Amino acid sequence: MTFEAMWAELAPVGRAAGSGGYRRFAWTREDHTLREWFAGQAAARGLDLTTDRMGNQWAWWGDPDRDGPGLVLGSHLDSVPDGGAYDGPLGVVSAFAALDTLRANGFYPVQPIAVANFGDEEGARFGVACAGSRVITGAMDPDRARALRDDAGITLAQALTTAGRDPATLGRDDETLRRVGTFIELHVEQGRGLADLDRAVAVGASINPHGRWRLDLAGEANHAGTTRLADRHDPMLVLAEVIATARRAADAHDAVATIGKVRVEPNGVNAIPSLVQAWLDARAPDADVVRRVVGDVSAAAGTTATEESFTDGTVFAPELTARLAAVLDDAPVLATGAGHDAGILANAGISAAMLFVRNPTGVSHSPAEHADLADCLAGVDALTRVVRELAS
Amino acid sequence: MTFEAMWAELAPVGRAAGSGGYRRFAWTREDHTLREWFAGQAAARGLDLTTDRMGNQWAWWGDPDRDGPGLVLGSHLDSVPDGGAYDGPLGVVSAFAALDTLRANGFYPVQPIAVANFGDEEGARFGVACAGSRVITGAMDPDRARALRDDAGITLAQALTTAGRDPATLGRDDETLRRVGTFIELHVEQGRGLADLDRAVAVGASINPHGRWRLDLAGEANHAGTTRLADRHDPMLVLAEVIATARRAADAHDAVATIGKVRVEPNGVNAIPSLVQAWLDARAPDADVVRRVVGDVSAAAGTTATEESFTDGTVFAPELTARLAAVLDDAPVLATGAGHDAGILANAGISAAMLFVRNPTGVSHSPAEHADLADCLAGVDALTRVVRELAS
Repeated sequence: MTFEAMWAELAPVGRAAGSGGYRRFAWTREDHTLREWFAGQAAARGLDLTTDRMGNQWAWWGDPDRDGPGLVLGSHLDSVPDGGAYDGPLGVVSAFAALDTLRANGFYPVQPIAVANFGDEEGARFGVACAGSRVITGAMDPDRARALRDDAGITLAQALTTAGRDPATLGRDDETLRRVGTFIELHVEQGRGLADLDRAVAVGASINPHGRWRLDLAGEANHAGTTRLADRHDPMLVLAEVIATARRAADAHDAVATIGKVRVEPNGVNAIPSLVQAWLDARAPDADVVRRVVGDVSAAAGTTATEESFTDGTVFAPELTARLAAVLDDAPVLATGAGHDAGILANAGISAAMLFVRNPTGVSHSPAEHADLADCLAGVDALTRVVRELAS
Repeated sequence: MTFEAMWAELAPVGRAAGSGGYRRFAWTREDHTLREWFAGQAAARGLDLTTDRMGNQWAWWGDPDRDGPGLVLGSHLDSVPDGGAYDGPLGVVSAFAALDTLRANGFYPVQPIAVANFGDEEGARFGVACAGSRVITGAMDPDRARALRDDAGITLAQALTTAGRDPATLGRDDETLRRVGTFIELHVEQGRGLADLDRAVAVGASINPHGRWRLDLAGEANHAGTTRLADRHDPMLVLAEVIATARRAADAHDAVATIGKVRVEPNGVNAIPSLVQAWLDARAPDADVVRRVVGDVSAAAGTTATEESFTDGTVFAPELTARLAAVLDDAPVLATGAGHDAGILANAGISAAMLFVRNPTGVSHSPAEHADLADCLAGVDALTRVVRELAS
């Protein structure tokens, strides 16, 4: 099955009629459709499908338990709310396409090769990004993972049970990790680095420290028409301070900070809110800078922000990065502000690297996210060259 | 059935387990339960139940078509999200209780008397407060009413159809209006006027001009980690300005203004929003002042606010107000910032007045809304005295 055919199969899954973006959240019906698609692709290629303790999928060509750790390609299939088609799926589809090209050309690797689909990379439903790789590397405690709740109050443990999985299996998965010699994640670029350089493919250098914090701004519900301004305890006013402070602090400290999610109780037009919750996403090249931004925002909120996740900076192994850049015609080596499963694995001591495919506008986490087909195919070609380099 | 027994029957209907507040929205299952309760109370008293072109319920003692316009008591049974138990139901329950007292004492009125339950007073679901009285008085165009949408995209026309009603009947209802000689709405006070005066019951003098406006703040969805601050079009920053401006303008112009409801698309932690919608509730003793606040907020938003509803100020007929105050031992006469169906009817030329029952904290539109039983019973007694005064 060609790249284009696989892409066409995925196109309708979880697509929102209104925005044209994707709503593919962990352990939902859409996620299951994507998992079944992945299993079908593995079966069609005669790959051995395994599912680890957190439900991440691995499709193996060869036996890593017998023939030593292998080379793993892949990414994720879930999305942010109203996300684009490329963030995640491009890495999975490109990995299958690269495998097809290699096998069609009679390539036989010296080590097992796998395609991986990491679950819940975006954290759109339960709030913690890269939940799949965090749990199996031990970066997230399984008790904490099981207790995560979605907006409807459903815990991750309940969602897993509903999906026919046993939440008791969650935890560090050494059996899975020791099979992974090297992990290469291909991903659409989420900035304009390649567009500015007029190149189709880059190698990832590093991932900035980044995290998510929740601010619970408590107020006192009351009538919007009859309560004097002086008598109000209106948390919406605090939200305004939080939003403005996040931007000011990011600007001052050379970071990025975003309030992208807000929840209001009771969210009635004629009621002063009893509670406003706001989520802060903050990133910078230096973890101390991120902490400073969070501190400024907490001070503005008059309450301590609750850390929902934090990932320290990742620098991918420079030897591996340099080797990939060399084999890809001196591809540019770019840092990114976006978190990825490759970063979680690298932080856990696994050899990992990333390839980025040009994004003409740099827009991501949006229905407008795009990559040209020619660049996608250049990405597939880059992956095949990387496999030849590392597994010949 | 006593006041307390009716109150106990209503207590569990639509009560939210978390907040302890009420979620009784128009044309939902909870609303139907309340309508059936109202019909049952009418039947138990041998009253004739009619339903008007907008679905408001009228329980008549006597025949207004034969014996001329009658005296109508009542209020509404719906609530804001997580609202209190008293706002609305107190007026309906007190009306039935007053009727019972009068009949137990052998009172026979010189004109028909009714208890009314107005639908969708809070506008919590479809955004327009007092939709029931607005439609039957012609204050809201039926086409506009039918096209109103709730947060799930369901139109009022669809909701009516689902509820077994015909949305084609919507419109000014002269047959119903000509039955109403005078309308008296008893309501829990939504401020501390009576508490400060140490009185149990007041007569309403006037309702401030008030309205609701929607602000659509458009942005450009993008990745929270990779998009430079300078490249962002983040509508959340505009929301911060809108919130701060609403408060500043209200303070400057001696009005009240509230942003109580916010909707964010896609509302993802790691995505710059593509759209933020905010609802402004603004009220002041003078309609021009309200317009000035809305103008200030529109300017801060960089877009014109969409008016979802506006109700000009109401001054209840001073002769009637004075007559009621006199019969209630010189009850205080208080203005209010809250809108009511009595105001809509008065603005349509119907003789109308209000009674307020003491609210010890002034808190309303909140699970903490309260009135002491003794004050509620004083309200019932006041209603009986008003009926004796007007219908003997």
